[in-house]
Parts: sequence; C-alpha cells; structure tokens
Amino acid sequence: MSSTYGEKLKITIFGQSHSPAIGVTVEGMPAGFEIDMKKLGAFLSRRAPGKDDTSTGRKEGDVPRFLSGLVVNTVCGAPITAIIENTNIRSHDYDDLRDCPRPGHADYTARIKYGESHDIAGGGHFSGRLTAPLCVAGGIALQILEGMGIYIGAHIVQIGMEKADRYDPVNVTREDMAILQTFPVRSHDEEERFRREITAAKAEGDSVGGMIECCAIGIPGGVGDPMFDGMENRIGRIVFGIPAVKGLEFGAGMEYASMKGSRSNDAFFVNDGKIETKTNNSGGILGGITNGMPLVFRAAIKPTPSISMEQDSVSLSEMKDKKLSVKGRHDPCIVPRAVPVMEAATAIAVLDAILCK
Amino acid sequence: MSSTYGEKLKITIFGQSHSPAIGVTVEGMPAGFEIDMKKLGAFLSRRAPGKDDTSTGRKEGDVPRFLSGLVVNTVCGAPITAIIENTNIRSHDYDDLRDCPRPGHADYTARIKYGESHDIAGGGHFSGRLTAPLCVAGGIALQILEGMGIYIGAHIVQIGMEKADRYDPVNVTREDMAILQTFPVRSHDEEERFRREITAAKAEGDSVGGMIECCAIGIPGGVGDPMFDGMENRIGRIVFGIPAVKGLEFGAGMEYASMKGSRSNDAFFVNDGKIETKTNNSGGILGGITNGMPLVFRAAIKPTPSISMEQDSVSLSEMKDKKLSVKGRHDPCIVPRAVPVMEAATAIAVLDAILCK
Amino acid sequence: MSSTYGEKLKITIFGQSHSPAIGVTVEGMPAGFEIDMKKLGAFLSRRAPGKDDTSTGRKEGDVPRFLSGLVVNTVCGAPITAIIENTNIRSHDYDDLRDCPRPGHADYTARIKYGESHDIAGGGHFSGRLTAPLCVAGGIALQILEGMGIYIGAHIVQIGMEKADRYDPVNVTREDMAILQTFPVRSHDEEERFRREITAAKAEGDSVGGMIECCAIGIPGGVGDPMFDGMENRIGRIVFGIPAVKGLEFGAGMEYASMKGSRSNDAFFVNDGKIETKTNNSGGILGGITNGMPLVFRAAIKPTPSISMEQDSVSLSEMKDKKLSVKGRHDPCIVPRAVPVMEAATAIAVLDAILCK
Amino acid sequence: MSSTYGEKLKITIFGQSHSPAIGVTVEGMPAGFEIDMKKLGAFLSRRAPGKDDTSTGRKEGDVPRFLSGLVVNTVCGAPITAIIENTNIRSHDYDDLRDCPRPGHADYTARIKYGESHDIAGGGHFSGRLTAPLCVAGGIALQILEGMGIYIGAHIVQIGMEKADRYDPVNVTREDMAILQTFPVRSHDEEERFRREITAAKAEGDSVGGMIECCAIGIPGGVGDPMFDGMENRIGRIVFGIPAVKGLEFGAGMEYASMKGSRSNDAFFVNDGKIETKTNNSGGILGGITNGMPLVFRAAIKPTPSISMEQDSVSLSEMKDKKLSVKGRHDPCIVPRAVPVMEAATAIAVLDAILCK
Repeated sequence: MSSTYGEKLKITIFGQSHSPAIGVTVEGMPAGFEIDMKKLGAFLSRRAPGKDDTSTGRKEGDVPRFLSGLVVNTVCGAPITAIIENTNIRSHDYDDLRDCPRPGHADYTARIKYGESHDIAGGGHFSGRLTAPLCVAGGIALQILEGMGIYIGAHIVQIGMEKADRYDPVNVTREDMAILQTFPVRSHDEEERFRREITAAKAEGDSVGGMIECCAIGIPGGVGDPMFDGMENRIGRIVFGIPAVKGLEFGAGMEYASMKGSRSNDAFFVNDGKIETKTNNSGGILGGITNGMPLVFRAAIKPTPSISMEQDSVSLSEMKDKKLSVKGRHDPCIVPRAVPVMEAATAIAVLDAILCK
Repeated sequence: MSSTYGEKLKITIFGQSHSPAIGVTVEGMPAGFEIDMKKLGAFLSRRAPGKDDTSTGRKEGDVPRFLSGLVVNTVCGAPITAIIENTNIRSHDYDDLRDCPRPGHADYTARIKYGESHDIAGGGHFSGRLTAPLCVAGGIALQILEGMGIYIGAHIVQIGMEKADRYDPVNVTREDMAILQTFPVRSHDEEERFRREITAAKAEGDSVGGMIECCAIGIPGGVGDPMFDGMENRIGRIVFGIPAVKGLEFGAGMEYASMKGSRSNDAFFVNDGKIETKTNNSGGILGGITNGMPLVFRAAIKPTPSISMEQDSVSLSEMKDKKLSVKGRHDPCIVPRAVPVMEAATAIAVLDAILCK
Repeated sequence: MSSTYGEKLKITIFGQSHSPAIGVTVEGMPAGFEIDMKKLGAFLSRRAPGKDDTSTGRKEGDVPRFLSGLVVNTVCGAPITAIIENTNIRSHDYDDLRDCPRPGHADYTARIKYGESHDIAGGGHFSGRLTAPLCVAGGIALQILEGMGIYIGAHIVQIGMEKADRYDPVNVTREDMAILQTFPVRSHDEEERFRREITAAKAEGDSVGGMIECCAIGIPGGVGDPMFDGMENRIGRIVFGIPAVKGLEFGAGMEYASMKGSRSNDAFFVNDGKIETKTNNSGGILGGITNGMPLVFRAAIKPTPSISMEQDSVSLSEMKDKKLSVKGRHDPCIVPRAVPVMEAATAIAVLDAILCK
Repeated sequence: MSSTYGEKLKITIFGQSHSPAIGVTVEGMPAGFEIDMKKLGAFLSRRAPGKDDTSTGRKEGDVPRFLSGLVVNTVCGAPITAIIENTNIRSHDYDDLRDCPRPGHADYTARIKYGESHDIAGGGHFSGRLTAPLCVAGGIALQILEGMGIYIGAHIVQIGMEKADRYDPVNVTREDMAILQTFPVRSHDEEERFRREITAAKAEGDSVGGMIECCAIGIPGGVGDPMFDGMENRIGRIVFGIPAVKGLEFGAGMEYASMKGSRSNDAFFVNDGKIETKTNNSGGILGGITNGMPLVFRAAIKPTPSISMEQDSVSLSEMKDKKLSVKGRHDPCIVPRAVPVMEAATAIAVLDAILCK
C-alpha cells in the first residue's frame, strides 16, 4: 500500500470499509488557518450516500472527529488526523467474495498481493468509502484555496449514453461552476436525463459509468514542477487514486490526437494588462506549469463493479468457473458521489503544488 | 523542477536542449546485469530524428557515454550516469522567443516560473530532446524486463484524422506488437495513411497530433501499490512527464463512461490452470494492481507547438500583441518518435513497481 | 512538521500531548503477520510513566486502539492506524508558558515556526508522549524482526556522573541484553547508583541526563543503502526524532578521533565458516552497510528541560526578562523511559532497511 | 544505493573512484543565482589532495565541468549537473582487494550487497573521492547562504591525542571561524601539533582519526521540521553520508549525559531587542528547530582504513585467513580534507531546510 500523497501538503489515508474507523492524516496545512467546520460538513454531505434512489441505501454518518492538529478549530502546525467511525458494518455480505472475486473489482488482485489476510469485507482499503477521508483533507484544502481566490468546481458531463455541456474553458466563472442542490449538474434537464440512465441501470440490476469535468480558476501562473511533478503528473497521481477512474484528459485531451497545431495552439494576447490565451486547449497547463487560465480536466469513471446480475467468476479454492451474484446494497452509479471527491483531490494537488512553489 | 521519478528504480534527468550535454542518473538498477549496448543503441536510434521527411532535419548523435555505474558493461550497484553531448547547437534561432513566447509551448510558463534566467534555447529543459536520456534509462529497463519474460511494445493508433487498429487487449502477443522498421505501426497501409497526414501538415507549415497505444505482457499479478502508487498512478506520473502528452486512458478508458457494468466487468475464468479474464476492459489493472492480463493504455499527443505558420502571440517586454513565425527545423509530428519513449517510460514504471513489490 | 519516517515501512506520527488522541499510521507491514497483542502491551508498559518515584506521577493509559490495517490481530496489507486516547488532560498548567518559554524546550522555537496557533499544552507535538505511538509501531517491528532471528536490546550506560558497563560489541548475546524488571539496566548495582542520581536531582527540583546503548544482533550482512541511506543515516534520522537526543555514536564512535587505523580497523577472520571481525569498532556497519556483526550505537539524552527550580526566561509579550518556575509533574530523568523508545526506533529503522534490500 | 539527499534542494551524487567521471546533479537551486566560479574553485581546492605530506600524493584535477542547469554561470532553473573527469586511474593497485577485503573499509560489505560486480577499484562509489561532487553542490549552497547572511565554518578540534579549542558557541563570529591557509585550524600551534600526529602515523605506515567542529551563524529561528526532519535529523542524514563519520553531537552533545537540567538548560534573555540564550548547550536547535543562536556540531572521523602496515584479513575465494598489505598512496589522515566537506554538507542541509520553510 502507498496511501500517502503529496510533498509539502502530505496526506495519508487509512482504514478499510469495515474496520473500526477510517481516516486521514494531513501534514503541512498552514498553521493559523481556522477551519469552518459547518462548511466542511456541508461539503462532506455532498459525498454521503443514501440521499435518494440513485445511490446505495446504506447510511454513512460521515462526521469526522479531529484527533489532533487543531486547537479548537485552528490548525496548530502539528499533523492533523481526522477519523470517521464505521458504524454500519454488515460483514457477512462479503463472505462469499473471499473465494469468488467480483469481476471488475480489486478482490482478486488484492488477494494475489496480500494473500488470505486481505480484508475483503466491503472492499477493504479499496472501497470507495475511503474517499470520505480524502474529502475531509480536500475540504480543508478547498477552504484555504478560497482564501487565495482559487475556486474549484466539478460536474457530471456524461452518464452512459447521455452527455451534458462542458465548461467554457476560457471564460468559466465561479457562477458557471454552480451545481444543482439535488444532483451535481448545472441544469434540471441534465439531471433528468442522467437520473434516467441510472435508474434504468438499477432496474436491470446493472450499473453505469460516466465522466466528470473539473475546473480550477484563479490559480496563478508558474505552479507545477516539470518534468515529473508538473500539474498533469500531480493531478494524475491523485485522481487515479480515486477508485474507478480509468481515463484522464487535460483541456482538449484526447481530441488533441486529431488536431493540427495551427488550431490546437492557444494564441496569446494581452487582455486588460494581463497575458491570456484566446482558446484553452491546454487546459491551463503548458510544460506542466500553470499559465493562469482555467485548469480543466475530465476523468472517466467506470461502472460500479458490484452488480446484482449474475456474472461469470471463479472459485479460487476449487480453481474452476463459478457463477456470482453480488449481494448487498451498492450504488448503481458512483459518478454523482465522485463529483465532490474530484474537487477534493484537485484541491489537495493544487494546494500542494502551490506550497511547493 | 522535479526531474526525478521512481522509488526503488530512481531516475533523474538533466540537461537543456542546448546545454553542453543532457543525461540521466539511474539508481537501483540490479547489480550484475550486463547491458547489451548494441541493443540499447538500436533502441535509441528509433527515437533519433533526421531519418526521413516526417521528422526534423536536425541530426542528433544520440550516443550515450556512461560516466559511472558500470564496470565494462555490467551494472556494479553504484548510480549509473549516462550523458549525450549536445553538438548541434544553433541558439540564435531562439533569440526572439525570449520576448515572444510560442503558443502551446512552455516558453511563457517557464518564464513566469524561472524568470529571465530560464534557458529558452531549444526549449531548454522542456525540450523533447530530454526524452533521449529517458530512453537510455528505459532501454536498460526494457532489457531487464525481457529477462523476466516481460515485453513492452507501443504503436501509433492515430495521427490526425487517420486511425489504426488497436491491440487485441486479451490475446496480444509479442509478435502482434512488432512494428515496421520504417514507421512505428503494424502495417504498410497504416504507415501510408499516417505519413500522408504528416506530410500534408508539413506542407502547410503546420503540425499534427496523434495517439499511441502501449502494451506490456508478462507482468505477473500483484504489482502496483494503491491508493496513490497503483499502476495507473505510476504510469500517469511518468507518461505525463513526456512533453505533449495531454490524455491517458487505461483499457477501455474514456469509453467506460458510456458502458454498463454488465458489459464493462471483465469476467474471470480458469484457463489452463490460470485465472484470466474473458475481456480486458480494465487494461490489466484492478484496484491499481496488475491482474496478469496485458497492461494496455493509450496516450494522446498534442501537435508540435513549433510551426512555421504565422501565429498570434505577445511581446513580453512591450506587453502588447505581436505576430510570431517560428524559425528553425521542427518535427511536423512528434508522434512516431514518441513511440519508443512511451515504451521506455512504461518500462521504468513497471520495473520500479516490480522492485517495490 | 514532517512526522513521517521510512521508505518501505513508513510511519506517520500524529497527536499533541493534550489533543483528543495521539497515534501512528504504519504502511508496509508485511501482510499476514499476526501481532501478539499481549507482548505488545508488555512492551508498551515499559515506556509508561508513573511506576515509581523516578518518573512523573502522571498516569497514562497507553493502551492502543487499532482503527485499521488488521483483521482481528493479523496485518491485512492496508495501512495500520493505532491511537491512544488522551484522558489525563490538565491544560491549565501550561497557560503561562505561552508567554514565557521554558529554557531547553521547544516552546520558543515552535512559537517562531507556527505562531500563536502552536499548541503549547504539554509541549504539543513536541511532547515525549509522542514516543508512545512510536513504540506501538516499533513494538510490532520488533516482533517481526524476532521472527527473522533479529533481536534488539537497549540499556542505560550513564546517568549523570554514574556509568554502567557497555555491551561486549563482539560477543553480545540475547541474554546479555536482558535488563532488570525494575529498571532498564543489567545489574542491581547499576540500578541503585542510577536511581540515586535521579532521586538526588529530583530532591533539588532539578533533572539529569544520561546515555543509552542499543544493540541489534542477527542482522544479516548487506543491509543499508549508501551514501545517504546507510545504516548510520537511517538510525540517525529516526533517533534524532526522539525528543532530547543530542548525540549519537556508532561502535567506537567519538573515540575513533583518538585512534590509529592499526587499532581501529576491525580485522577479518574466518570463524566456523563465517567471516567475522575480531573487534567491532565499526559497530557492525562498514560503508553504511551491515557486516553481520552486532550493530551497536549510543545516544546521549539531555536532562528534562521542565524543572521546578526557578529559571531565567523572557516574556514574549513584553519582550523583557522574566523568572520562570515550571509547574506540573515532570520526569526528573527521561532516560529510563527512553530505553524502550530507542529499541522501537531501531526496530523501525532496521526493518525498513531490510525491506528496502 | 541511495545517493540522493534533500527535499527542495535535492542532490544526487554519482561516480566511482575509477569510473570515467564523478559528478552531482542538483535540483532546486534558486533560478537567477549567479555562481562565482572563482570562489567555487577556491573552495574545491581546499578539499583537493596532494598539497603536502599529510595527504595522499595522488593528484586530482578537481575542476568541475557544468553540463546543464546554467546559462553562462547563472542558474536557469533546470537541474544542474557538474562532472569531474577521472584522469589519474591506476586500477591494478586494487586487484588483490577483490578477494581480500580491507579491514575497516566497505570492500567486504559492498561485496555482500552487490556481489562480484561491485566496482572495487579505489573503493568504487564508497571512495572519499565522491566528496568532491558533494563539495561542488555545497560550494554553491554556501554562496547562496552568504547572500542571506548565513556563514558556515568548520575546523579540526582533534587529531589523535591532540586537541584544539572549540568555538565559543554563544559568541562565535565569522572572524572566529577563519582558518589558516595552510591547515584547517585557527592557530599555528594547533597546526604544528596536529601535523605532528599525522606525520607520526604516516611514518609507521599507520593512519589517525580526528574530530571536526562545524558552525553556522546567521540562520534565522524557525528552520527545521520535527519530528523526523528536524535540524539534527537533516544534518545527521547528510553528515553520516560522508565516509568515515561515526559519531555526531550537537551543542553539548555527549556531555549532556552527565549534566543536570539547571545547568544544561540555556536561559533566555532579551539582548538588544532580540531573544537570545546565555549559554548554547543546545547547539542552536530546540525541538529540531533553530532558535537563532549559532548552530554547532562535531563529527568524529575514523582513521583511514587503508594503511600500509600488514593487517589480518581473509581470502573470500578460499574462505581462510590471509594477511593483507594495502598498496597505493593513501591519506594518513582524512580529517583536514574533510573540513570543507563538512561545510559543504552543512550548507546543503541548511539551505534545503530553509527552502522547505
């Protein structure tokens, strides 16, 4: 395991889905910063499940308890550790999976790596539940960034066959990044179409994937450390740490493959005494370093592997093929809940890069 | 700058396009391994320019000189340093760029970060030329991996509007990964169509982007360290360090967004006493850990920013808009030369992950 | 703060003296190892205070609660986090110290570094109490090392003006490293003389320093990674992280300064088919790498800075000299309690170095 | 091997005693700093051998060639690499040592670690010669620190049975740190006594050890990152990377063991509007963090292991005892040449810690 990320702002995530608690330790948060706990709670509730029928029916009381690093709510300079107790434990749902791994899940590879001692209950350390402590750290980072005039927002741009409008990568504002209270998209039409995809999948005992777009505005130019700690590398390292992310593209991303330089190069111009670019195919990053334009990327999220439909798997003990039906309550689509996680991860990567400057 | 990558196999890349030399230091190569220098030379020549009219006319004598770490050609355990002297220096081509940054290039962001001291000649440390030492380190890693039965191959799957067949992600063999001697693709038809795209762009003083697919076969299951040092994170961190890479997807990648779990989950089955998957949408990685299937990813490469067509830029000294025509000889398409670089980067990431096991 | 140590076995220590809890996260403990909790508890109790009048009268219930990383008591591969709740909190003792820093303590330097937000109560993150979680991680490492036939022991060799016999660095055995149950020394005569020094200091409202010798036997040759991760560097980095350590010497250590090579060089000889050395001035380390002989070092521990005698200090708010009398209960000598801490730190450094091999 | 040190200022040292070249790569030197090459050359010449009969008769042309990282002599932001070509190669002197390792040297442990491929000639990567590139990096760091008003000086305080006066740890000035041009001590009396010890050892075909004291003045308070990156940890990690260092103490160091708190605690007082301490037993470091007083430490250097007197060793091939007489020219005492190395190492550690602040 290597559940540590960052250089000046260093986070270490611990816990398994069904361990007594999960949590995060954060080193390097600037001493003297006072955390707005109410705002942090509101941010965390965006990730919490059980709000409606597009997510799992499990209830998770994701209220962090800060064990260290604060005096009242102010960062004191020592490492911050926050934990979330695991109360909703139903381990017997997972007994069968020890022998019969879920297709698309880490059950099998974790078994190879850690042997029979691997904690398979709820996916162990591989569970999406581990994004809750990531959101605790990221939620604080978001508050610090806001104090610097940097705002990060994400929204769903695709679920299954349905797509939504992307941000305008040149002119996106904080208002453009506002999402609906009911669903992390920017219009009720999008919400309706996306919900339809999810409920259709759920009705079939299936799940569905999607894509999230994330944007950070207000980052000054000059942030990022090439060759291997450029902004793409930094964001890549943390975002691929979010379970289910399998693709990542910055700015024009995959479309660059079909472009010519005359169109893909973002022309510079002087705007109101500042140097800006007319287009933003680069997603705000040139040579791994921010150029002051909005930083934009998209991440593809694979469908939840835990589905109730019968699937082909194997019995590890008997080394023969076996049918599997996954029991328990699972999200038919993880994408909506992954939106704040993407913001949290981005905030950590950006704040760390700024502190490294 | 943070030009160091890796944990047990650690590489540090140094040099600027027009500095006296460029090079790489590698720590952690297993002592006792004898480098096949002829094979290494052949690998490096795949990256070298000047072979035909699809690449820059510059000649680069990319012959590495090993300063340390070897006794004759055998790794002795001390850090290996290899350098390539820079002989073909024409710095006056770049004088104008100090004031008038190339759109799409790091000229501007490096200037913000390092100030006027930044070495702009040839792109400095941001030059694609720095991939030569990456290939020296990666070329050795490839040889070591071959000794373990692990083979890595890459090919072009897209240039501009033309596309080629992808690998069969389930059954790809070493033979399937063989490329033409004249062009890093698998058929003359592909070569012809891709060359046409490049020469068309060149004729217009333009450049064109593309996409590379890379595959590693023979990696045992259990390699990769979640959450933040999983195989996607590790490959992401090094591949986004290759100049011009702006998108990265593993297995089904971006297509996962439109998939349902029942189709995207790779069913397990027992094949000849081994557990395999019937499909390979995951690209051989589950939960950040290899599952023994071929590891497959694709990376989007943006068009070379240096084009001879006139472009809109700015004068930094006068802070006003200015037209720019880039002089000098540049690749109209960097994609063919980036193919061995992708193999080298992957070899470093995979060998490091294996040594960390 | 940088409270993370290690490469393959990585520990992160969190908590302040008076925060809700203190704890440690450990990554890289080998999956499948079953922790002997009773043995761990016995080890931790060696560090606990309040046993007799040579230590502070405070009671600390140093019973760790494992939040993650275990299934029952077996390491599952995910990061292990253990916490110790802080129950005996008496913060009002420290109110004055915020303005008037204790000579010899981190009160003043932490204030410079972290500003007024620094958690001064009980010394905050600088408290010796933070060695409790170090002992949790080290206690597990000791158990794993024992399974490899590696044993680590430490004892007091000096307190104030009284000294004890050192280990025989060539022939030291596990039995030689056994200490009394009442005091971490090897004879009742030593115990009596050392206790006398401590109680004399206590009677005067003073404190006293000392020196600890630590030894590891059974480490195979070839462990350690020069230049900067040799065994001296590795042990140095963790041992200087124990509060109050101000000097460190390996083998002959400081005495090397007065030696000639003909005497200091440890002659090799073949003993029962194995290569050993006749003397062990090197402390078992040559060129940063173990040679198979006992690894021996000594660390000087400064007197506890918190003494009840009146001292000269300053008022930070008034920027003028001020007399200080430290209230509260403090150890007149930290040395006895630091003995298991030294073993724990050494175990972590040695196990990490072995895992890096 | 792990020849990389540092966090924001990262150095990687490469080369073997008899490889084509040795060198160093430095990442993180502040862009825009202009190196005074003449001053750097003068600093490096202090380490060079062959000046008189107290050091080896070998000539080393330690003139660094900068391959990258500079534009003319100004740091451009890219990694700096400097190499020193190895010209005076006489490898046949070392043929016997492959089978018959030198007592006190790394010959044997390197053989265990790297096998027969280890480059034994001249000690390979373990040679004191590798301190030359450390001095290149440190020499630049010293210049940068001087620009911040921070001065570092070291001197010999002991060789064999002879000792010299230590610095006054409270009031030491830049002038106090001035050393003789002929020998790194502060008075001709000390020089004479130390030279006598060295020539006496040399006459007997022997070698002798010593102790170096190093001091840094002008470091502001608040530098250092506890628990494991405090100033003692940082200096320990780099100084124990200098071959032959076996002991290290800060301020009162080992003497703390015999002290009482009432004497060892450094009383604070207000001096001319600044907070200082009346004594400086802490060596300027409290809780791992600088307090603004002079940072003072001493390092014990073991006698050169290569002596011409016959010694007891073993034949590795025959696994039996064997007599060894080391041929070739070796320093009878490495201590004088290690003085600038200590300054260089300290400069790197201090500058890195400041950049991490």
